[in-house]
Amino acid sequence: MATIDDFTSQYGLVKKIDAFGYLNQLKQNPNITRKHGKIVLVTADTPLKASRGEGKTTTTIALIDALRARGIDAAAVLRQPSMGITAAGSKGGASGGGKSSLSHPELIDWGLCGEMAAIEAAQNLLVSFAEKAIDEGKLDTVLVPRVSEVPSRSLRSIVVDAGKGDVPERMVLTPTCELMQIVVLSRSMQELETRVGNMVAGTLQDKPVLFKDLTELWRITNILTDAVKPALTETVAGSPVYVHGGPFANVSLGIPTLVSVEMAQTLHDVVVVEAGYGADAGAQKWLDIACREYDAPWPSAAVVVTRATTWRDDEALQWRYPFHVNRLEKLGIPTFPMINLWEGEDDLVPGLRELAAELGFRTPVAGNLFRDGGEALASQLDAIIDVLQADAVPTPGASHAGEDVLETVRWIAQHAYGVPAQRVVERDGFAQSLDEARGLASALGKDLNDFAVCAVKSPATMTDNDAAAEQDRTITLKKVEVRAGAGVVHVNLTSSLTTPMPKIV
Amino acid sequence: MATIDDFTSQYGLVKKIDAFGYLNQLKQNPNITRKHGKIVLVTADTPLKASRGEGKTTTTIALIDALRARGIDAAAVLRQPSMGITAAGSKGGASGGGKSSLSHPELIDWGLCGEMAAIEAAQNLLVSFAEKAIDEGKLDTVLVPRVSEVPSRSLRSIVVDAGKGDVPERMVLTPTCELMQIVVLSRSMQELETRVGNMVAGTLQDKPVLFKDLTELWRITNILTDAVKPALTETVAGSPVYVHGGPFANVSLGIPTLVSVEMAQTLHDVVVVEAGYGADAGAQKWLDIACREYDAPWPSAAVVVTRATTWRDDEALQWRYPFHVNRLEKLGIPTFPMINLWEGEDDLVPGLRELAAELGFRTPVAGNLFRDGGEALASQLDAIIDVLQADAVPTPGASHAGEDVLETVRWIAQHAYGVPAQRVVERDGFAQSLDEARGLASALGKDLNDFAVCAVKSPATMTDNDAAAEQDRTITLKKVEVRAGAGVVHVNLTSSLTTPMPKIV
Repeated sequence: MATIDDFTSQYGLVKKIDAFGYLNQLKQNPNITRKHGKIVLVTADTPLKASRGEGKTTTTIALIDALRARGIDAAAVLRQPSMGITAAGSKGGASGGGKSSLSHPELIDWGLCGEMAAIEAAQNLLVSFAEKAIDEGKLDTVLVPRVSEVPSRSLRSIVVDAGKGDVPERMVLTPTCELMQIVVLSRSMQELETRVGNMVAGTLQDKPVLFKDLTELWRITNILTDAVKPALTETVAGSPVYVHGGPFANVSLGIPTLVSVEMAQTLHDVVVVEAGYGADAGAQKWLDIACREYDAPWPSAAVVVTRATTWRDDEALQWRYPFHVNRLEKLGIPTFPMINLWEGEDDLVPGLRELAAELGFRTPVAGNLFRDGGEALASQLDAIIDVLQADAVPTPGASHAGEDVLETVRWIAQHAYGVPAQRVVERDGFAQSLDEARGLASALGKDLNDFAVCAVKSPATMTDNDAAAEQDRTITLKKVEVRAGAGVVHVNLTSSLTTPMPKIV
Repeated sequence: MATIDDFTSQYGLVKKIDAFGYLNQLKQNPNITRKHGKIVLVTADTPLKASRGEGKTTTTIALIDALRARGIDAAAVLRQPSMGITAAGSKGGASGGGKSSLSHPELIDWGLCGEMAAIEAAQNLLVSFAEKAIDEGKLDTVLVPRVSEVPSRSLRSIVVDAGKGDVPERMVLTPTCELMQIVVLSRSMQELETRVGNMVAGTLQDKPVLFKDLTELWRITNILTDAVKPALTETVAGSPVYVHGGPFANVSLGIPTLVSVEMAQTLHDVVVVEAGYGADAGAQKWLDIACREYDAPWPSAAVVVTRATTWRDDEALQWRYPFHVNRLEKLGIPTFPMINLWEGEDDLVPGLRELAAELGFRTPVAGNLFRDGGEALASQLDAIIDVLQADAVPTPGASHAGEDVLETVRWIAQHAYGVPAQRVVERDGFAQSLDEARGLASALGKDLNDFAVCAVKSPATMTDNDAAAEQDRTITLKKVEVRAGAGVVHVNLTSSLTTPMPKIV
């Protein structure tokens, strides 16, 4: 029988793994020995701004290094950072820092093995095929958007075929596109091809037309041959780290690919999954989309990272961190506060522990992980290890499939952002947008209520104004977009701007 | 001392070689043993249309397989095909066919290791930095174009920042962009960085502004870390093939990177360099730009591929094939006609040999290379091998640097396309375009006459009307574009359309 090594190839300084092939072999051969790793979800406080991370990746790396130092076979699964954003200088990379770093951060941050670029080419090729369909009279409007990994202010609003068709368009960042979502969710090339085929290319006489009726789908899947393979790299301490799937959980899924997590579970006893920006974005997407709707593994524990300054410095926003911790605990997930200290902050720890005790938290884990790496954590892990070594199997949350989309949105607002239904308001045009989405789903022979709801919002806010008093916080529903191939329905909420194509700073 | 293996890494099913590092080591250590391979240029008849190849890659593969069967250490250097064009279905790949194929054509044709995608991201990031400079008042116009590897009809003409700036733009195919030219021409990362720095970002109050005055250039070179490394693959018969640099010699350089050829020369006795579309595009660029202006190695022999049908079926265009063969012979390059036969054409060979004899050609090499591979050629190579084993060192052509650009254009028209100066005509606006280019060069402290002239034209035509009688053939000069980083000046000639962003077919 082939081993994982037989599905693994060297790609320069990293390895790539044919996860589809490997998991298929396990499925076909139920008697092959495998592990059933438990999931630790590493998420974070809502960031004060998108460009300032709390240190999720740094924590994830320190955590697996520390667990391995304690004799536990732990691995991490990370999302691939957006090279465009990193290269533009708008944000550092996402490969940890200092002693809690990947051994080759330059690879992870600067395009890895071309996965994102391949997804970009494939999604843009779909647009080209839609244009061809227009020329052939098979479409009269194109609905699939173009993408660019490199952010470019002036692409927010463009007119293509200028001087002839003059078609208004906008481009979105590659990691947020439907094809990336399909790569994140698909468990086989066949599933991926089916999902691409079910993407809506555009409309003909107001009726939606799918790519399976227009395009040779092998042209798309060929481009994605290597992009569907998770990369394997390691921390400077030598712990295994899988990297697969795009970021930006505030405007898309933004979670690691399901196959990368499931593959890691068969190989390790503990799999640390990074999900951010904050818990309201990454953890919400992992739990409420990946787990509830796509059968991804429910976490056995969670770690919520914050910087002392994020949690405490803005008094009006101090409610957010305890809200996240409590929300996860209420779901039955043992949740550990994690304080990622910057230089000069060591003496804040006693006060933070006191505050955590007052709030009824589990004992926080704290350390300067940049400076001290996993060593800062190793002695503080008893409680986490107890949870992971318990026999308890986590009880996954239930699916919302079939429930009215608007009810699911209200449920998310209440549970993930703390805003009850009566303060979830609809902006002018929302109802029409929702009706159109229902109509589109119907025209495809589907029920919109069976799609997974994907919230679209700013990374740094959960409500229309997080600084308002609790009873005054609202959420405004803005518009709805169907992604039939991925099986998700995007709902734009909160009045803050999203950044599908940011200006570089 | 490190060997070539120390500069070589496995990337999935291919290898990538740090050619910059390897060649630098050789340069620093003149006593290290190395080969000094002779160059065979494989080029072709002008194709009847862009989407129909004559079989240059097929021939190149068969030729090295045959040379190696004859005991000669031969390798090939190919350009990477445009994945966008292949995936769109507008053209087959460029990895040979049948018995004359690469062992992993799917890799070469479908994005290789992401080289083209990295160049695309880097060139588009330059546009983003130019936009940022506009926001900061450091530029008032952007001159660097956006690129896309995927062809998309509606991107020929776009308006960006629509509703605000409303800036008209067009996008060009990635392989044709200035950054690709810089990758093709650069012999070190330092040279590459300098050339990127010398790219014109745009203008401020009509004065050109360079990227070195706007941008941290390491952000661009970081993206290109792996893109500058040639890939190593092999033919189905096991012969080594290096792949590096983008296609489309009709509208850009379209030649393999200089380092890939020079590296291959140190490792093999014979290096077969593919250059197309036809001799008027690829061979013209290799000889008149790479060799004359950038010190690339002059060929010791040339092979000009044609299909029997291309050469003979269109009577009005029959002049082109002998013209190419004779032009190369006149340059002192022993030039071998090569007839690449399709199924059912074997019995054309005697007639073609007779025709070749009448025309004073060397004896043609002929075979069905798809069906028979290198075996079809092995017995026909005596004359080529004699040439390659002679002691003669080729005499490179002289540089045109310093010569008036217009004179160089007329020289190209005469020598490469057979149109004398008096029939090279200027379209309205050309003189002004040339003046502006001269002004731009001056403003940069340079002389336009020192730039290498890069002809831009249709792949399937050499003149305004190739089907006209010889004395009626003209060439129309249309416009001039300076690429200060690459050090080339583009001159659009002939009245036929070029395809910077083709519609997919």
